[in-house]
Amino acid sequence: MNIAVVGLGLIGGSLSKAIKQNTKHSVFGFDINESITMYAKMDGGIDQVLCDNNISQCDYILISVYPKATIEFLEEKASLINKNAVVIDCGGVKSAICDKCFDIAKKNGFTFIGGHPMAGLHFSGYKYATADLYNGASMILTPNNTDNIKLLEEVTAFIKSLGFSSVTVTTPSEHDRIIAFTSQLAHVVSNAYVKSPQASVHKGFSAGSYKDLTRVARLNENMWAELFMENKEHLLFEIDHLINSLSEYKEAIENDDADTLKTLLKDGSDRKKSIDY
Amino acid sequence: MNIAVVGLGLIGGSLSKAIKQNTKHSVFGFDINESITMYAKMDGGIDQVLCDNNISQCDYILISVYPKATIEFLEEKASLINKNAVVIDCGGVKSAICDKCFDIAKKNGFTFIGGHPMAGLHFSGYKYATADLYNGASMILTPNNTDNIKLLEEVTAFIKSLGFSSVTVTTPSEHDRIIAFTSQLAHVVSNAYVKSPQASVHKGFSAGSYKDLTRVARLNENMWAELFMENKEHLLFEIDHLINSLSEYKEAIENDDADTLKTLLKDGSDRKKSIDY
Repeated sequence: MNIAVVGLGLIGGSLSKAIKQNTKHSVFGFDINESITMYAKMDGGIDQVLCDNNISQCDYILISVYPKATIEFLEEKASLINKNAVVIDCGGVKSAICDKCFDIAKKNGFTFIGGHPMAGLHFSGYKYATADLYNGASMILTPNNTDNIKLLEEVTAFIKSLGFSSVTVTTPSEHDRIIAFTSQLAHVVSNAYVKSPQASVHKGFSAGSYKDLTRVARLNENMWAELFMENKEHLLFEIDHLINSLSEYKEAIENDDADTLKTLLKDGSDRKKSIDY
Repeated sequence: MNIAVVGLGLIGGSLSKAIKQNTKHSVFGFDINESITMYAKMDGGIDQVLCDNNISQCDYILISVYPKATIEFLEEKASLINKNAVVIDCGGVKSAICDKCFDIAKKNGFTFIGGHPMAGLHFSGYKYATADLYNGASMILTPNNTDNIKLLEEVTAFIKSLGFSSVTVTTPSEHDRIIAFTSQLAHVVSNAYVKSPQASVHKGFSAGSYKDLTRVARLNENMWAELFMENKEHLLFEIDHLINSLSEYKEAIENDDADTLKTLLKDGSDRKKSIDY
């Protein structure tokens, strides 16, 4: 098959490399930064440069650019896309993207499926892309409907052929609700954590917990700001919930209420054990 | 030398095993749970059971029990301890312990140094203790004064012989101020994080950031509650500071203020880069 990869950053670049390493498909790649596109062609990450003249030859089109740019790309190229093609995006929010892209696909007769690979790094760009980024990871898919089970099975097989170990099918709104907690809140908290005046003098005073809590503090502010704004309702719920939880510990400590503090800590510990063990 | 290890949990058990693996010293060990003491003797983690009759033979006494129990132990055994002995505790707060233990040591003529090994696990107990827990870790020491540099050099050499890569010497209050941020706040946040209603349904929707943020949510509530209460001023500062920081992101998102949100995110990202790279 011919696979288009639009956007050759960490996510798209790793998709290209995973396709090249794990399958015999041809990759038609494109990045808005022309030197990245050229570099990817030179280092074998892509086979051809994707353009208006060859996009109709692509069986899958994987889009890995920011949410608004995803919609803009699909609107602009919709008429050129093959009716049998499946377009999957990789954006970190799904309702904002899928609401628009389901419509565009319907009008133009091809299939659009929302996607979100559960893998990443706290570094961005093609230079950090690797063929094994998705090995063992989960891929979330948000199809427009579940009528075409045969197609979903084919897409699942294709996704797994890139190294993903599992595919999670859900709705765009369910995705956005859960991802606000698992990913977006984690980035907000980590980014806020390092703002303590003590952060600059932690050396020699830290072990794994500091390292884990602050790993994703380093982030691409433009991408994350767009993702947060496109999912504000769910993310605000999570930030509020966490602030309220933190305030409970704070109050117990202020009041020298060791029993309440122990209960709060045991509750959190029990929840973690019940969820992840 | 003869080294006493008081408390054979994760921290004390790992100290015992590290001494046995890395040095030729004899370990006199004791745990309040008699079956743990017996087990440690059987599996070679300790050489002898520490008791009132042999504590005077010990050159170092390493105490790894909760803060209040540390003070109680030292008060009770002070008259039995050799005047040339060095006692080091491993408690996660230092002012509360050192204020009392410096006095006890002075009255009884031996040396007490506050200690805090920067290593741990989200599991506790002798069964998780390993000889390599401290390999490459930092050990914080809070001596009563810096007059006896020769002794501090000897202690540093002893500590490093167990696998620690570095020793950080500071005051009890400086320790408590920084550790509230690097360790205690991390445990509060991680424990609070999993209380979101979304935590129970995250499977298939999470990658590294969720895992990192919630790793230390699993904790020993009795130990941590005691540590938090003994360091309440510093910990409350950190919780407040984080709540205030989180509120800034929240407000920017609520107000659709993408520019402020980007500035907040860039500031956190830049801080992380400047601190840890």
